[in-house]
Amino acid sequence: MELFTANNVWMMICTALVFFMHTGFAFLEIGLTRQKNTINILFKNIFIITVGLLLYYLIGFNLMYPGEFNGYIGSLVPGISPPENGMTPEYADGGYTWWTDFLFQGMFAATAATIVSGAVAERMKIGPFMIFTVIYVGLVYPIAGSWKWGGGFLDELGFYDFAGSTLVHSVGGWAALVAVWLLGSRIGKFKDGKPQAIPGHNIPLATAGVLVLWLGWFGFNGGSVLSADPELTSLTLVTTCLAAAAGGVVAALVSFLRYKNLDLTMFLNGILGGLVGITAGADVMTPESAILIGAVAGALIVFAVSCIDRLRLDDPVGAIAVHLICGVWGTLAVGLFSTNPEHTFVAQLIGVVCYAVFCLVTSFLIIFTLKKTVGIRVSEREELEGLDNHEHGMSAYSDFRMNEH
Amino acid sequence: MELFTANNVWMMICTALVFFMHTGFAFLEIGLTRQKNTINILFKNIFIITVGLLLYYLIGFNLMYPGEFNGYIGSLVPGISPPENGMTPEYADGGYTWWTDFLFQGMFAATAATIVSGAVAERMKIGPFMIFTVIYVGLVYPIAGSWKWGGGFLDELGFYDFAGSTLVHSVGGWAALVAVWLLGSRIGKFKDGKPQAIPGHNIPLATAGVLVLWLGWFGFNGGSVLSADPELTSLTLVTTCLAAAAGGVVAALVSFLRYKNLDLTMFLNGILGGLVGITAGADVMTPESAILIGAVAGALIVFAVSCIDRLRLDDPVGAIAVHLICGVWGTLAVGLFSTNPEHTFVAQLIGVVCYAVFCLVTSFLIIFTLKKTVGIRVSEREELEGLDNHEHGMSAYSDFRMNEH
Amino acid sequence: MELFTANNVWMMICTALVFFMHTGFAFLEIGLTRQKNTINILFKNIFIITVGLLLYYLIGFNLMYPGEFNGYIGSLVPGISPPENGMTPEYADGGYTWWTDFLFQGMFAATAATIVSGAVAERMKIGPFMIFTVIYVGLVYPIAGSWKWGGGFLDELGFYDFAGSTLVHSVGGWAALVAVWLLGSRIGKFKDGKPQAIPGHNIPLATAGVLVLWLGWFGFNGGSVLSADPELTSLTLVTTCLAAAAGGVVAALVSFLRYKNLDLTMFLNGILGGLVGITAGADVMTPESAILIGAVAGALIVFAVSCIDRLRLDDPVGAIAVHLICGVWGTLAVGLFSTNPEHTFVAQLIGVVCYAVFCLVTSFLIIFTLKKTVGIRVSEREELEGLDNHEHGMSAYSDFRMNEH
Repeated sequence: MELFTANNVWMMICTALVFFMHTGFAFLEIGLTRQKNTINILFKNIFIITVGLLLYYLIGFNLMYPGEFNGYIGSLVPGISPPENGMTPEYADGGYTWWTDFLFQGMFAATAATIVSGAVAERMKIGPFMIFTVIYVGLVYPIAGSWKWGGGFLDELGFYDFAGSTLVHSVGGWAALVAVWLLGSRIGKFKDGKPQAIPGHNIPLATAGVLVLWLGWFGFNGGSVLSADPELTSLTLVTTCLAAAAGGVVAALVSFLRYKNLDLTMFLNGILGGLVGITAGADVMTPESAILIGAVAGALIVFAVSCIDRLRLDDPVGAIAVHLICGVWGTLAVGLFSTNPEHTFVAQLIGVVCYAVFCLVTSFLIIFTLKKTVGIRVSEREELEGLDNHEHGMSAYSDFRMNEH
Repeated sequence: MELFTANNVWMMICTALVFFMHTGFAFLEIGLTRQKNTINILFKNIFIITVGLLLYYLIGFNLMYPGEFNGYIGSLVPGISPPENGMTPEYADGGYTWWTDFLFQGMFAATAATIVSGAVAERMKIGPFMIFTVIYVGLVYPIAGSWKWGGGFLDELGFYDFAGSTLVHSVGGWAALVAVWLLGSRIGKFKDGKPQAIPGHNIPLATAGVLVLWLGWFGFNGGSVLSADPELTSLTLVTTCLAAAAGGVVAALVSFLRYKNLDLTMFLNGILGGLVGITAGADVMTPESAILIGAVAGALIVFAVSCIDRLRLDDPVGAIAVHLICGVWGTLAVGLFSTNPEHTFVAQLIGVVCYAVFCLVTSFLIIFTLKKTVGIRVSEREELEGLDNHEHGMSAYSDFRMNEH
Repeated sequence: MELFTANNVWMMICTALVFFMHTGFAFLEIGLTRQKNTINILFKNIFIITVGLLLYYLIGFNLMYPGEFNGYIGSLVPGISPPENGMTPEYADGGYTWWTDFLFQGMFAATAATIVSGAVAERMKIGPFMIFTVIYVGLVYPIAGSWKWGGGFLDELGFYDFAGSTLVHSVGGWAALVAVWLLGSRIGKFKDGKPQAIPGHNIPLATAGVLVLWLGWFGFNGGSVLSADPELTSLTLVTTCLAAAAGGVVAALVSFLRYKNLDLTMFLNGILGGLVGITAGADVMTPESAILIGAVAGALIVFAVSCIDRLRLDDPVGAIAVHLICGVWGTLAVGLFSTNPEHTFVAQLIGVVCYAVFCLVTSFLIIFTLKKTVGIRVSEREELEGLDNHEHGMSAYSDFRMNEH
């Protein structure tokens, strides 16, 4: 009873922290984009968290955790049906309530769509984005999740993803890649083939966003232990924080060596890269491995950002570099550094490939269909004047004077 | 001992979360108003939380939880006097410390005044507002609270208010209504009888405010279980979050159908309406009822806002719609949907009426007296030029260029 | 086992809260300074938390908690070496994990440098600041900390500092004093010997910063109990919050009486002063003593700020008044008001003096050396045009129009 209570307290707190990550995502996305699209971004993020939760109640939870199933796709059963004793199965030490399990997992569900939101910022029509979100959060994410966390075929295969480098971050990242490609770059992003900086309008909020995300990761990874097991939860927080720190420092350093500039944005994205990277194996790493994984993630960020630029993909907030590249890296790193000898590189690679294929195909089908039917891109005039005025009829900072651009 | 510790940990965390709600309230209020009154709003909010806590120590706590008393009004005993074992009585499972109880309840106390703060923003003199706050937080709120939570006559009657749809939110809401009526509307709010939009100056902060408030509600409702009882706390978080999501989505939808606009402010106030609505019965609702209560609250918000406009009441942040209308709705909804058969609609209605009368009378007496003596409204010039310069001699954003208006 | 789990949950939450304080410090510092140095300040703060954590892993933790040692200085042992059972020694009731201990203490470590960051804002070169941070956080802070918290000679002597009025806040404060003195004042701060107000550019963020810091103090003081002991943790939160409230109210009041102005900044710094003041003895005070300590701290803030001005020291955010003056006051106050009769004023005074000498000498050596070698102050042109452009090549609010100044 006492452990049950302590576990449940920990899981509820982690749930609150993961919920708070949506504030972090929203801050980061508006901070790194232009003021004229701020309301639009906030609307998307509020839509994602509210509709995401309702969808997870209606469809997602039972689709993702179907109990006995064929290993590939569960069935649609709306609602939450706690077992007789109201508890999850006993994990490490004692379980917690079914209600908490629903809410914790529900807070995760919306994250994948948020990642896409950042990548398509400043030019995607909000209607089609909402449709995409409903399908991706309501169906794609839970099905993909069931393969591992629901006990599906990848779980049987020995694939490991502790808190979602792949199941959450790369699931969002692959869709972001497809969306950015189908959508095209923002007007003015590439001139004569060369990428132009489009500076973000509120860097204090972007920075706060990253710090709030880091805070939220205490719950994202800490809660993924699925109990308050002292050894595992606290090791997880240590590896998480060390990877974040190493990711940030290395990204700042590499970017300084390469561009002779103390680049705050790179520092911030390096921290996020470190966090995404450690997420797949935060509970099975030594602190040394965590620092190494974070450091590599930080370096990857710098190269990935310039590589994505060279591919003429326009990802305003660096979502692909952070969530996709570092998500894949972190998942593979489990095969290299895990303290659990059952984790193998091959199983990790198979997992990565399965998710890549599934997410690329599904997100392409959804977004391409939307593109060919309702259209996914706002008009040139709307893009230039800002989505806030056109889609929402209001402005984010009505008392402030703005620069024209 | 272990349960006592776990309970106390949970209650301390909830206390911290409720404290953090004051950041949310402050953000929301400044975000939805004009930049020239920002310092004034921040000053009021900082005043409320600091003075509110001290008053609760000096007067409020013992007035609200008087132990044996006549059921209507306790006595003035300053300080905190923990019982011999330092614990609260044992609730669901094991109690927690008296110190935590004081602090948790103290964080609640200041909320009622914060609600009024939003409604009177941009035109009320700060001196009289501070006097009102002292009396309302120091005396009115604890007396009103004692009727139910202190074991008073409404508790005997079977009235139920789990976490304060009525005891906190409508207690603030009724006073907001009186204050707005006695104060009159802001210059320029009504032209030829038609309401004019006065846009808020910082919508990212307003949005962050709502997300912080939602986060804080994990503690507001979760802590109102008064123990870490796993079943009750986690059910409460689920109903709270589902009602918030439903409130937001329905408010956005109704407002879209009515005004053909994707209105972020309505989305945000719908979330708050859902949260206020579920607060009275968060522990006695099924998830389905929670979604329904939130959805109705979301729809109510849209109609209430336009109705309040039509009454030529000027409530800059929508405090009356959110806290009063949805507070009353949530309290009555307990009589309709509670899983506890002892809850009746009649008892709920009696409770609502008693609080309405008491709060309308006391807040009228306080504010009317202030109006007739020191005056409650700033001069026209001060209102036009902003309260920041006149009452505080500083500006919130001194480096930024502002639009004249 | 159950207490072990509950303790560890509490300590992990406190760790998260102390981590979040870095958001508070960053917000406060940028809010109270000019927009042209915002990126620089954010970069410094992100640097401090990331590098601070890595240094604490590499050097700090074992240097600060050396186990058996000579009482003055431990030895350099990199990494974390949990004892066999993975736990800290059993404190009040049951211990928690070594991992959590590392992370909790690591979050503290970075704070001292953050305090200095605020004091040197808007004019110190970032390179030398980073070097100073590395030495001060990596070596000075852990050595100083070992004297008391590591069981060193001041601990033997009966000196008491519960959560760091001296060990954290004045350690940062003394260095801030030295840095401000060696650095000189910002251009335009003193005209004909008279201090000129240089208004902060984002007071909502500064206010949010203080509220986030207050929230973080729930973990800073609450976690310093080093267990979830219900009586001690909850008493600590009560004294902490009452001192904060009293500090704010008294600072606002004194400043109103003195300057006839409702000064929000003074209100905010008063809250911080109250928090710093109670930190040394939050677990050994009655609520009455806590209010008194906070109130005195609040008054001290007002006088200290004007006194520092008169000394022609330029401390943009009031770090010296808040962290040094109130840190010393709080430490001495333990000798006056502690409920533990073993605490004496003399021991407290000796502790204060030892830390003063050590911190003044070490910070002088570091900063003076930097001044004479690489230089510590940016060029006049860079200072006038802002550090953001010169050191980071970007601007914090690129879409907004700014006032020239």
